Amino acid sequence: MGLQCVALSIWSENMRNIKLILEYDGARYFGFQRQPRQVTIQEVLEKALSRLLNRVTKIQSASGRTDTGVHALCQVVNFKTAHAMDLKKMQRGLNGLLPRDVAVRQIEEVPREFHSRYSARSKVYEYRIWNDPVRSPLKGKQSWHVPYALNLRRIRQGMRTLSGKHDFRSFCAAHSAVKDTVRTIRFFSLERMGSLLVFHIEADGFLYHMVRNLVGTLVDLGRDRWTLEGLKQALRACDRKLTGPTAPAEGLTLIRVTY
Amino acid sequence: MGLQCVALSIWSENMRNIKLILEYDGARYFGFQRQPRQVTIQEVLEKALSRLLNRVTKIQSASGRTDTGVHALCQVVNFKTAHAMDLKKMQRGLNGLLPRDVAVRQIEEVPREFHSRYSARSKVYEYRIWNDPVRSPLKGKQSWHVPYALNLRRIRQGMRTLSGKHDFRSFCAAHSAVKDTVRTIRFFSLERMGSLLVFHIEADGFLYHMVRNLVGTLVDLGRDRWTLEGLKQALRACDRKLTGPTAPAEGLTLIRVTY
Repeated sequence: MGLQCVALSIWSENMRNIKLILEYDGARYFGFQRQPRQVTIQEVLEKALSRLLNRVTKIQSASGRTDTGVHALCQVVNFKTAHAMDLKKMQRGLNGLLPRDVAVRQIEEVPREFHSRYSARSKVYEYRIWNDPVRSPLKGKQSWHVPYALNLRRIRQGMRTLSGKHDFRSFCAAHSAVKDTVRTIRFFSLERMGSLLVFHIEADGFLYHMVRNLVGTLVDLGRDRWTLEGLKQALRACDRKLTGPTAPAEGLTLIRVTY
Repeated sequence: MGLQCVALSIWSENMRNIKLILEYDGARYFGFQRQPRQVTIQEVLEKALSRLLNRVTKIQSASGRTDTGVHALCQVVNFKTAHAMDLKKMQRGLNGLLPRDVAVRQIEEVPREFHSRYSARSKVYEYRIWNDPVRSPLKGKQSWHVPYALNLRRIRQGMRTLSGKHDFRSFCAAHSAVKDTVRTIRFFSLERMGSLLVFHIEADGFLYHMVRNLVGTLVDLGRDRWTLEGLKQALRACDRKLTGPTAPAEGLTLIRVTY
């Protein structure tokens, strides 16, 4: 026991904790987290890391597990290694080994206790809607095509109702096992740029499918399929069956994680 | 003979000339023009048209033939049909039949003599460069990744040298059979938005690979691999061998055609 502890402590002394900021187009991937028989971001990243460092290297965690088809402008991951490789060289090496739709945008060495998931204080997601009768193969990339007219004033009213601290069970995927479903939405904005609608939402944490369920419900509100009173009731009821549809993954991008 | 002419004239009376504005992501296509054993924009469009109108329908022309991998925000094509289908219905029908990376953005009926290629007075292309040491899977879409620092002041000097009426033979693909290689660049601009560099170039016409050869040469100028004097000499020499490399297709988008 004693010897093992000493060995572990020497081993830990040499270990570096390395934080990566990843950008990826999620279209081709079965989400972030490793899955049997599916291509995931974690898999291509760990393959590249292991090859570059010439030893099996696993990441410790990611700030959050993006779903199938979801993008990231700055997904944060960290891993431990005893390898002495220079950081610039490591970044260049990884970018040379990763597929074109994944890139290491930044790299830095962080204190041993840094954990990309547990240390995260909040995350910001962007959701894009191409709101035009005709789809746009170029300008509507990474967005959900909604061909109907939307009442943005009502959507913004709905966003105010949802902002702040609430039990978001009604907006959590029905099969999620999470117990504590209280989260705080700190910031929720909607901008229109021509036919493009862009939501930004910051919270201390997100439940499974939460952003997509919020956006799907807000779009229904904007199409007058819902009333504001109905939204308030659904939020209070804590029942997923009472809220709107799940917006598609392709419009969603993780854009910031704060520590 | 006489009868045939009468028949032809009656036939023409009923023919409508229809102009489409197409948007497409060229990544998956072997250019605009039909090619044996390759998927092209023209092929998917004519297939959709023929299926919708229930008779073989060919387009008369496109404003220009974009190359393999080149995008369009507004490619103009026209076709003749005797079909009486309402235009809105035709647009919706085509968008339902076309692949997701091609869309009919606008549709209108035009005078019989309108020809999307011969009637065009000028075209505007956009060329995007992601100028950053690290590639960007999301923000660097539809752009050429140039990881080196570029001297934009020198590039702009080069653009002024190239603007106006010149014999652009030095910037025309060597195997092109075109005789008259004199063209007028009416407008040539460069904007930087963070790491993104965006060129806009308008001319009365473009030679084969002309925009990509101009951009490839300007990037070499910006990397100090060329002098401004060298560029002037190369332009005067009318010899493709004296100019810089061809920039990749993925950064190029046809953005406007004026009639």
